[in-house]
Amino acid sequence: MAQQAAPSMGRRRGRSAKAPLTSQSIVDAALGLIRERGVDAVALRQVADQVETGPASLYAYFASREVLLEHVLDAAYAQVQLVDIDDGGLGWREALAETIVNTIETLARYPGLGSVALGTIPVLPGALRLAEHELSLMEAGGITAERAALAVDLIAQFAASSAIERTVRPNGNRGDGEREQVRAAYENADPERFPRIRERAALLTSPDDQARRTFAIRVLIDGIDRSAS
Amino acid sequence: MAQQAAPSMGRRRGRSAKAPLTSQSIVDAALGLIRERGVDAVALRQVADQVETGPASLYAYFASREVLLEHVLDAAYAQVQLVDIDDGGLGWREALAETIVNTIETLARYPGLGSVALGTIPVLPGALRLAEHELSLMEAGGITAERAALAVDLIAQFAASSAIERTVRPNGNRGDGEREQVRAAYENADPERFPRIRERAALLTSPDDQARRTFAIRVLIDGIDRSAS
Repeated sequence: MAQQAAPSMGRRRGRSAKAPLTSQSIVDAALGLIRERGVDAVALRQVADQVETGPASLYAYFASREVLLEHVLDAAYAQVQLVDIDDGGLGWREALAETIVNTIETLARYPGLGSVALGTIPVLPGALRLAEHELSLMEAGGITAERAALAVDLIAQFAASSAIERTVRPNGNRGDGEREQVRAAYENADPERFPRIRERAALLTSPDDQARRTFAIRVLIDGIDRSAS
Repeated sequence: MAQQAAPSMGRRRGRSAKAPLTSQSIVDAALGLIRERGVDAVALRQVADQVETGPASLYAYFASREVLLEHVLDAAYAQVQLVDIDDGGLGWREALAETIVNTIETLARYPGLGSVALGTIPVLPGALRLAEHELSLMEAGGITAERAALAVDLIAQFAASSAIERTVRPNGNRGDGEREQVRAAYENADPERFPRIRERAALLTSPDDQARRTFAIRVLIDGIDRSAS
């Protein structure tokens, strides 16, 4: 959103004046390409084309594709809408849950970026902003600093992997046809080896992706909030 | 492990007799290649070479690389050592925690297979065996069938994404040098914007990967076990 309105963009060809090359314009161009095509399909050459320069010039800003992707990831984290306790009278748990949902939604807009996130140790400002916010919510909830520090990591892993699931499964909300097939497979599972799967075929296949996500976030926050350490 | 001892393997060249082509021998060959090179580097052609046939012959067994990978994933799931309540007098929580650890370890032996897992809805026997076991442990723990059904999904997501983290971060247990760098970055973070990260730099960076995993699994099981639904 924000980057589409940025005035320094050089993404459209045929502009009369070429926008100056900046780290930000390169990252914005990469974000735009990734949103359309996914991380795996985006090479440095294409990003260079988009900002009307050569790949060699990009290396003055980012030492490698990997480094560029870390900055692209961080720009995505910076877009995450943080939900605070004051907003609408939410408690810290609800605020944290909604912040996690927003993190998943943001990452899922950029196919493949969740995989980059799983391989990145966060040190850039967009990730720190998100972590700081999560720490502040957990502090308000009385979570010890030790537990909160570990929880930030787990939340990041959960958000990234949820985004990956959303983007690699073509029909995130599984079509009824596919769901029926899976249910039939469970109902017909070997009764000796898989009695519970057979018996609970409906329970295992009815919840849609949103119900699964709501459950998962609740489990995480309940587990983090557990008074016993 | 098991597949290395299988007698029907045709993975070594120069054997006097060519092993008969079976689904199992193809899957075993693919597992071996993935273990060495990772999923992304393994093409159907290489698998075909390994079992001394042509790619076209593989299509008689698996309609696509994607379908083969689903079966390869399932063969990996089938290798997971299930830990039961009776083993060593463990309670259901410890048995479940150890089963999750074993799932992560098994997937992490095959780089890239965690990503396949995040994109796959489990219907094959190896995955069903693991799910059935988790359901039986949660049933013993008094978890409702509804919650257990959702929890199986969340556990699979956690195990797959943990395996991805392990294999994409070259030094899973971060070297002291890298940890010091990250800690320095946190300690030098902007005190206005990131006060907690700055203050808790040591807490955020000291736990090693095993401590993080132990915490995460405990959070999951605590959250699943929470009496309030």
